[in-house]
Amino acid sequence: MQFQISNDFIEKIEQLVEEKNNKQLLLQLEDLHHADIAEILDELSLDDATYVIKLLKTDKTAEVLLELNDDDREKVLNNLSAKEIANEIEEMDTDDAADIVAELSPDVKARVIKYIQDEEHADNIVELLRYDEDSAGGLMAKELVKVNENWSVTGCMSEMREQAENVTRVHSIYVVDNRNHLKGRLSLKDLLTAPSNAQISDVYIKKVDYVNVNTPGEEVARIMQKYDLEAIPVVNEMGKLVGRITIDDIVDFIREEAERDYQMAAGISEDVEANDSLWQLTRARLPWLILALLGGFVSVNVLEAFDEAIKTHAALFFFVPLMAAMAGNVGVQSSAIVLQALANRSLRGSLLKRLLKEVSLSLLNGFVLACLLIGGGMFLLDLGWGFSLTVGISLILVIINASLIGTFVPIILDKQGIDPAMATGPFITTSNDIFGILIYFSIAKLILGF
Amino acid sequence: MQFQISNDFIEKIEQLVEEKNNKQLLLQLEDLHHADIAEILDELSLDDATYVIKLLKTDKTAEVLLELNDDDREKVLNNLSAKEIANEIEEMDTDDAADIVAELSPDVKARVIKYIQDEEHADNIVELLRYDEDSAGGLMAKELVKVNENWSVTGCMSEMREQAENVTRVHSIYVVDNRNHLKGRLSLKDLLTAPSNAQISDVYIKKVDYVNVNTPGEEVARIMQKYDLEAIPVVNEMGKLVGRITIDDIVDFIREEAERDYQMAAGISEDVEANDSLWQLTRARLPWLILALLGGFVSVNVLEAFDEAIKTHAALFFFVPLMAAMAGNVGVQSSAIVLQALANRSLRGSLLKRLLKEVSLSLLNGFVLACLLIGGGMFLLDLGWGFSLTVGISLILVIINASLIGTFVPIILDKQGIDPAMATGPFITTSNDIFGILIYFSIAKLILGF
Repeated sequence: MQFQISNDFIEKIEQLVEEKNNKQLLLQLEDLHHADIAEILDELSLDDATYVIKLLKTDKTAEVLLELNDDDREKVLNNLSAKEIANEIEEMDTDDAADIVAELSPDVKARVIKYIQDEEHADNIVELLRYDEDSAGGLMAKELVKVNENWSVTGCMSEMREQAENVTRVHSIYVVDNRNHLKGRLSLKDLLTAPSNAQISDVYIKKVDYVNVNTPGEEVARIMQKYDLEAIPVVNEMGKLVGRITIDDIVDFIREEAERDYQMAAGISEDVEANDSLWQLTRARLPWLILALLGGFVSVNVLEAFDEAIKTHAALFFFVPLMAAMAGNVGVQSSAIVLQALANRSLRGSLLKRLLKEVSLSLLNGFVLACLLIGGGMFLLDLGWGFSLTVGISLILVIINASLIGTFVPIILDKQGIDPAMATGPFITTSNDIFGILIYFSIAKLILGF
Repeated sequence: MQFQISNDFIEKIEQLVEEKNNKQLLLQLEDLHHADIAEILDELSLDDATYVIKLLKTDKTAEVLLELNDDDREKVLNNLSAKEIANEIEEMDTDDAADIVAELSPDVKARVIKYIQDEEHADNIVELLRYDEDSAGGLMAKELVKVNENWSVTGCMSEMREQAENVTRVHSIYVVDNRNHLKGRLSLKDLLTAPSNAQISDVYIKKVDYVNVNTPGEEVARIMQKYDLEAIPVVNEMGKLVGRITIDDIVDFIREEAERDYQMAAGISEDVEANDSLWQLTRARLPWLILALLGGFVSVNVLEAFDEAIKTHAALFFFVPLMAAMAGNVGVQSSAIVLQALANRSLRGSLLKRLLKEVSLSLLNGFVLACLLIGGGMFLLDLGWGFSLTVGISLILVIINASLIGTFVPIILDKQGIDPAMATGPFITTSNDIFGILIYFSIAKLILGF
């Protein structure tokens, strides 16, 4: 039942645009979902995409613009006049409208706002632009259905019908007092089943979850997920109802957060996509690689410091990548688990208990791996007892060290108020490389005595 | 406004459980949200938690059980009789009920189902148990509001009120024909604003997104996100309406997927948490470490093969961890970007174009990094032109190779129908270590001639 874009269909649309066959174009695109049209526009050239946007009605294109990826949208908007942009904005919900307006350059922004004919809509957008985009204020929409606690159920029904016209989806009806303070909520179900002569104040639910305009987005996401909410009202500093956040915006937020964390762990510092330009990709990737290179210089120095071992125990150097790889892998594993626990706020128990657990886990893993390494060293590589034992013992200590760094660096950063996701990936692997090699050669020097 | 658990509060609850002060306990817990009670139970001992569960009413504890983490829930359920579990199940929506029943051992499962008094509820649960848990059938609930296309709007309103009693949230009203085939949908808003003498067939929307019971969960998540749906109906092979999936279940699904991918990239193969047992953590982590160890053995052999270089160019060995680290980091960056593009289905263009892009990106990054490396090698480490140039050129080739492996291994796996997330993390870093070192020494041998 889902629409699937085919190359044939894209070519057909390109053909129609070239022929300026507006009638056929409208016929082909009219019944498609706006998300599908956005996918098609992503495949078209900028000029063709702009042509289609100008051709379709604004109630359709407003939704399509929202679905386009940021780069494509920026380009298309550059091809539209301030008045045309204002027409699109007019059709959008306030939260989406504010997001789009925020992306415009300052002078275009001012002109677009001036062209918006619905004054209330324009006021709402300007209000939303004031909030930080990752705060509840930046995520909320002004559209909501609210009723006064002093109304009757019957009066409420007709008022509600009117308000509902402007709201895409009615999740909850919010109840306010005469001064617009949030008092509680009412479900449509409650309203449907209430006796028609009742007062709202008799039937509404006084318990309502809400957030403040300044609540950070992650906190909103956490609350909505924890309490399984589909919408949450937003109040300002005086407790007045100013907006609501719906779960679909939060789904996008959660996905973007997860992608950002994932990229951070992989050593990519900006939100990039496979289709971004070389320059954007380089800017996101190169800084981490330079960090890794600097770490590499340090490891060169560490190895140089032990260069007398080359004459008597050259084989020690052959095991360097193995030690570094084990340190890196263990560090990334430990930090990934701690990071997720920090993100979910599920990290429990004292730091001492966590320390003991990581050490026992590393001892357990390290012991198994060291046995394999000693066995391999003796029987496969024929390296002799003393040497194999040296690398085996070093491996256990390298693993313990790596898991402690992987566990506690994120915890310490988090306590300092720094994003612990910074700590995974290149940062952990680089420092574990260096410490791993240092520990390895120190132990070897102690046992083999070179 | 949010409830914050304090240690004081936990101690107070523990105290009350010890004193068996049921009245005070109920008073303390009565008004809390079930998600908050679950958080409290997570902190209590198993016996105390069971005591609280048995004390509270089943309409509350059913929700609490759903919020507990899997391990705690399993332990608590072990302390309840089949009849007690059935009472809890009775209060749950069918999708949640089926998830809980699926976790029980076969004999307990059979007894619990027999104890469920509402026969329709039991039938529904048994039906849901048949579906794969990651398919639309496994995600859906049987609770929904549906109307027949032949009904009148007035008759529909009263019927709907009755059905709505059993459904926590009414998202959409589904329209079916006499044989229960899904025909379309109706929003509450439409129903409220329709003239009361109209037929449903006059007012319903014939376009409705739906999925099949066998549609995979990721596909459901993708469709619901793309089309911004809050609920989607599920039909069986004959097109009959059998259930619906709501966005809150999909939010959990998306989060779990993201966590799984993240852990996979970090070399953790089972879904584990920081608070899991040593044995669980070892089982998830050790296999990847053994893989890395085997890779390490290969790299020992590669280095041994070039051991004649030790006499003339020992410094080459000092740069091994640097090369390995750069190869690993570049590989993880490339694979992370490709993986996300594959997950979002946003990878566009031919493989050849992608190849050219990765090569140019690596050339750009590699050139900058090689310049830094050559500069550092000459002026900081005093290694001379020939040697510095050798490591510089090797670095560029190592980076190109690593980015190609990082890009194309996931793409190839994906085309083969294998989960490409397997390819990131330890697998990519290990193979890039080996190939990196091999390329490095081959180039060095070519240039320096040892």
